[in-house]
Amino acid sequence: MTTQNPASLFIQTHEHDNVAIIVNDGGLPAGTLLGPGLALQEAVPQGHKVALTEISEGSAIVRYNVAIGYALRDIPKGGWVQEALVRMPGARCLTSLPMATRPALPLDPLEGFTFLGYRNADGSVGTRNILAISTTVQCVSGVVDHAVRRIKSELLPLFPNVDDVVGLEHTYGCGVAIEAPDAAIPIRTLRNIGLNPNFGGQAMIVSLGCEKMQPERLMVDGKVPSGGEACVVCLQDERHVGFESMIDSIIKMAHIRLAILNQRRRQTCPASDLVVGMQCGGSDAFSGVTANPALGFAADLLVRAGAAVMFSETTEVRDGIDQLTARAVNPEVAGDLIREMAWYDEYLERSHVDRSANTTPGNKKGGLVNIVEKAMGSIVKSGSTAICGVVRPGEKLTKKGLFYAATPASDFICGTLQLAAGMNLHVFTTGRGTPYGLAAVPVLKIATRSDLARRWHDLMDINAGRIATGEASIEAVGWEIFHALLEVASGRKTWAEHWKLHNALALFNPGPVT
Amino acid sequence: MTTQNPASLFIQTHEHDNVAIIVNDGGLPAGTLLGPGLALQEAVPQGHKVALTEISEGSAIVRYNVAIGYALRDIPKGGWVQEALVRMPGARCLTSLPMATRPALPLDPLEGFTFLGYRNADGSVGTRNILAISTTVQCVSGVVDHAVRRIKSELLPLFPNVDDVVGLEHTYGCGVAIEAPDAAIPIRTLRNIGLNPNFGGQAMIVSLGCEKMQPERLMVDGKVPSGGEACVVCLQDERHVGFESMIDSIIKMAHIRLAILNQRRRQTCPASDLVVGMQCGGSDAFSGVTANPALGFAADLLVRAGAAVMFSETTEVRDGIDQLTARAVNPEVAGDLIREMAWYDEYLERSHVDRSANTTPGNKKGGLVNIVEKAMGSIVKSGSTAICGVVRPGEKLTKKGLFYAATPASDFICGTLQLAAGMNLHVFTTGRGTPYGLAAVPVLKIATRSDLARRWHDLMDINAGRIATGEASIEAVGWEIFHALLEVASGRKTWAEHWKLHNALALFNPGPVT
Repeated sequence: MTTQNPASLFIQTHEHDNVAIIVNDGGLPAGTLLGPGLALQEAVPQGHKVALTEISEGSAIVRYNVAIGYALRDIPKGGWVQEALVRMPGARCLTSLPMATRPALPLDPLEGFTFLGYRNADGSVGTRNILAISTTVQCVSGVVDHAVRRIKSELLPLFPNVDDVVGLEHTYGCGVAIEAPDAAIPIRTLRNIGLNPNFGGQAMIVSLGCEKMQPERLMVDGKVPSGGEACVVCLQDERHVGFESMIDSIIKMAHIRLAILNQRRRQTCPASDLVVGMQCGGSDAFSGVTANPALGFAADLLVRAGAAVMFSETTEVRDGIDQLTARAVNPEVAGDLIREMAWYDEYLERSHVDRSANTTPGNKKGGLVNIVEKAMGSIVKSGSTAICGVVRPGEKLTKKGLFYAATPASDFICGTLQLAAGMNLHVFTTGRGTPYGLAAVPVLKIATRSDLARRWHDLMDINAGRIATGEASIEAVGWEIFHALLEVASGRKTWAEHWKLHNALALFNPGPVT
Repeated sequence: MTTQNPASLFIQTHEHDNVAIIVNDGGLPAGTLLGPGLALQEAVPQGHKVALTEISEGSAIVRYNVAIGYALRDIPKGGWVQEALVRMPGARCLTSLPMATRPALPLDPLEGFTFLGYRNADGSVGTRNILAISTTVQCVSGVVDHAVRRIKSELLPLFPNVDDVVGLEHTYGCGVAIEAPDAAIPIRTLRNIGLNPNFGGQAMIVSLGCEKMQPERLMVDGKVPSGGEACVVCLQDERHVGFESMIDSIIKMAHIRLAILNQRRRQTCPASDLVVGMQCGGSDAFSGVTANPALGFAADLLVRAGAAVMFSETTEVRDGIDQLTARAVNPEVAGDLIREMAWYDEYLERSHVDRSANTTPGNKKGGLVNIVEKAMGSIVKSGSTAICGVVRPGEKLTKKGLFYAATPASDFICGTLQLAAGMNLHVFTTGRGTPYGLAAVPVLKIATRSDLARRWHDLMDINAGRIATGEASIEAVGWEIFHALLEVASGRKTWAEHWKLHNALALFNPGPVT
């Protein structure tokens, strides 16, 4: 029996729960006394669940005040509630859901918070000053890579106010069914990424010429952000004779745009100009008790300050759809949420899988028995305000408040779609740890556990693990995230930016390749 | 009326054809006399078709001795046979096909041709000497990019016999339905790419730790090419404290492997050690009369020399399935061809499209009215020998002769799957022009038109356009390709290698993302 203070050994998320998770690094041995009459019947790893009462076969296993599963056999009080003992519930039916039934708590506006951003002509605000070179098709990537290297070494030093030059490369654009019903998603995603506030309306396009996704498809009302043909370098254009002439064309166009971007200056902007995309990846059982609740608190602060905030990841909220529809601002928004869930159910069904294809070996090692438990921990990052609307995959968000941006849970696809939605800041919580980053928008990373924060001290920006150990409150870490976001928005580098770590754009293409 | 020699103005592919394509750069004006009683009724662009006889409404439009479509209204002799005048035939039914009915022409073995390659322990032969760093998941890409940059600048100069260090990055590995029936395709693709002969059995793996695609899935019989755990750097491994420690682990493992690779020496190898992947992209109406027939002739030479040769691109051969099943070496191989076509039909149908989703704006601008015409021009690159077998997507080719490697037509997915099949050389024909390249295997590019070859003089390796103008025969260009392949296999750089142009790996994942 250990002599540690039982209070810091485990976390019961809700008073109705009949399980709690073990906090200690390394877990706890059999015999550890967690409270009066509650001793561990066996060793339980960190993040895994212990039964707080006897749970008889067939009874609900309750965490977050939700039945995350049913006992496959009797589980003794103090027993380890392992995946093998838990039957997953079926997916919540999408009819008869509560529609906008739970009014959001009235929260006072939060005033006076500002950051230093780059205000654009369209009213949006950038947090970085980046020249983006968009591409219509993978064919041009080798040439764009070459051009970007030259622009960075030869031109960028001449324009000290510009942070970076980024090639927006992807594997879409040709060899795909461009007229398939779902092709609208990757096409509008790329079009809207070009409008991201960090690019200051100066994104340019490199096209091959013969590809299915012609440059016009990336233009808005027939125009790219800063206007028409002058934004497109077409490699097959007859004036190009030899490789160097292609590179010259790209460099010349980049030069003009760099000069314009170099005029941008940071100015004081209200916090309401933030557009924050939230995501989690490499989750564990702590995600739902440390990092995500703290991020949920920060999300409430952002909404109170008038900002736009997005949460996402359809398979990771599917099991909490009733919570979301209840929190919708009106029945129409609840209906939009249901539409996105139903679409994704059908999308997965086409390939004979369902939402349970989510959850990874790492999630399970981290204590999450199934997607229901994972979803409950994921949703909590949305905070407590009303859900004002739904952004469909690849669409642009144009309003303020809390939004559900419907995206797959894949970290890279979610990040790419949130870029298209217009985020100027990204927050990412992780329990197992990932060096995730994006080239176009800063990513603030939050560890769910102190052990991860210690080992990955120069990759994790904030340690929410202090909540589990009682060193910090959810509110305190929430405020810390909020302040950190304002600082990063103003130019402070995240660890991912310090090391120049970023991942690939990954388009969501539900259609086939040809 | 022009006074040019009519013989060089147009090409009739087969004596039974009732259309021919215009050869001249810039096309020909109305009134041009192509032959006795055959004057152009209107201007016809280069690569587009002219009717050689009157074609009445509903009649077959015949090219390659195949009905590529049916006239939607009467087309006069000398008229421009445009897309809008052509009804596309339905897809050839996959039952009642000729099964191995047309024996291949007996061709003499071709002996005495050799190249200088790197012979591997498993008997395969590399054409380049490359350290590959494979990845289990996109999460690690930022870290691998960083490590590759450092290895290239700090270590590679110490190992002069090693050509390059390549990170095998992709967007698969997590956020995907890893147990979906079709997940086997991307998984075996990545596993087999690690075995590519150019990597000398020394590919290493960088893993995150919590991802769905655990490193074991990339191992063969539980082992990576050169043996077990010692080939894997896991970023979440507890011994990693801080970002630099991850980079150090990768660099240390790379150092050991570079030292081994540096011992490789080129030695004389018979041409039968070549494994050639063939592909076309950015096709035009000349593809089927210049570059692809010449490549077909070269394919025959390679097969006669005992090499392995692959052609691919399911939607671009689907309309010639009867030609392929007839050429199969036995009815089982014919059945395998049908199985792959049927699978792809169903795959496209799931998303409510069909093979006609292939063909691009550039194909059409280049004169190809539909996928039937495109397919006829594509198949001709397979030459005339018997089809010895079918390689399913992501599988490894282990035999000699002509094979159908079943892949989508997307240039990048096809190239990636042919890498997995074990190709050590890649040939790519193009009419519109693309700067395509691969990091792991040299790509020899062949232009279908002299105009493209002239303008892209430092991107196209061979000009097959000389066939259209009568300056060279199909046989002569075929031999030229054959000799160029032996030289490139021996170390001569292609233009894509000269400029260091390469495209991304693009995995074929028919399953959903989560």
